[in-house]
This record gives sequence, structure tokens and C-alpha cells, in this order.
Amino acid sequence: MEKIVRQSLLYDFYGELLTEHQKSIYEDIVMNDLSYSEIARLNGISRQGVYDMIKRCDKILEGYESKLKLVEKFVNARNKIADIQESIEVLKTKNQDEQLGSMIIDIEEKTSKILEDF
Amino acid sequence: MEKIVRQSLLYDFYGELLTEHQKSIYEDIVMNDLSYSEIARLNGISRQGVYDMIKRCDKILEGYESKLKLVEKFVNARNKIADIQESIEVLKTKNQDEQLGSMIIDIEEKTSKILEDF
Repeated sequence: MEKIVRQSLLYDFYGELLTEHQKSIYEDIVMNDLSYSEIARLNGISRQGVYDMIKRCDKILEGYESKLKLVEKFVNARNKIADIQESIEVLKTKNQDEQLGSMIIDIEEKTSKILEDF
Repeated sequence: MEKIVRQSLLYDFYGELLTEHQKSIYEDIVMNDLSYSEIARLNGISRQGVYDMIKRCDKILEGYESKLKLVEKFVNARNKIADIQESIEVLKTKNQDEQLGSMIIDIEEKTSKILEDF
């Protein structure tokens, strides 16, 4: 997994356990794609300070993940849903019955929403 | 949700963030259904001490839930899957085609395994 994707997932799951200050800086780097220099200037700290804080946040978030493994479980569940969606696609092409067809589409739509809260 | 069911879910998600001692006592009450008196005797502490520790663990676990809401999200996802499974049951009864039937059963089985890692 690309580093920024992992950071984003870790933040989605455990970000609320960081302090407001940590969250703000982590979001600026990971979600808002600002540069270290920009964030240093905006927060009145050194570039090295920003670097250290991101590294510290990564460590905190990875620490929670190593204990709770919720990103891993979520990614597994998401892959299983993608696999089911492929099976539903095949089912749709094989099916000839109109009534069944709309039931299958209903199941497909519901399946795409299973993890929407996460 | 019944208190013991909620405690068990909270423990499933956040239990690893408790200390070993807290985990052991919480598990004995919530999973192993031991009495406060038994646990007090086994750990050489007072019944009140056990009571206080469970209350403290509840508070810690609820604190994580109030921030991360992972039990809530998981329960929502589980309800959505139950709803999909009902739709699949109806689809099965309406379907007359044997090939489609085995594809539907395959989807049903995969659906039941989406959250098995959690």
C-alpha cells in the first residue's frame, strides 16, 4: 500500500486519538497535500519540527493499528465486498429474468453501501 | 443493546488497549461469566476492588468508542449484511435456474464472511 494511502486509512480509523494540534498538521500533510515548508510557515515552527511531528503521529497511529488491526480488518472486508461485486456482475449477465434482475440490482446497491459509515 | 453484549463488543474492538491485568479481570467477568466474588478471591483483591476495576475498564472502553465509534460502525455494517442476506433468501426462492442458483449460493456464502475477521 502506498504510504499516503496507509496514512490516510490510519488517520480515518485512529485520528481522533491524536491531539487537535497533531490532527491539524497531520491533515495538512496527508489530506490537504501541503508541503512541509508551507506547514512550518503557517504554524510558526521549523520544517524539522513538522517532520518530527508527522513521524511521531505515524508512530502513534501505527501503534494503535499494531494492537487493534482495524485498518487491516477493514481492508480485508473491502476486498471481500469487491469480490462479491464481481460475482454479482457475472450473475447479472447470466440472468434473463426481469424480476430477478431488479432484485439483483437491489442487492448490488446494498452491497456497495455496507462499509459507507467507515 | 444488553449491557454484557455491549461490553463484549467494546472489548473485541478496544480490549487490546487495556493492561494485561485489566484484560484478565474484564474477560473473567464479561466473557467467562465468573462472579465478582470468585474473581476477588482468585486475584486476592476485594469484591469492591473488582467492581471498581470493571467500572474503570467500561469507562476506558466507552471513551475509545465515543471517539472512534467503531462498534457503532461495525453494528451498522452487520445489520446491512443481515438485510442483504434476507434479500438473497428471497432471490433464491424466486429463482428457477440451476446455474444461477449455485451462483447465488456462492454470493450468499461470501456475504456471510465479510466481517469474519472482526
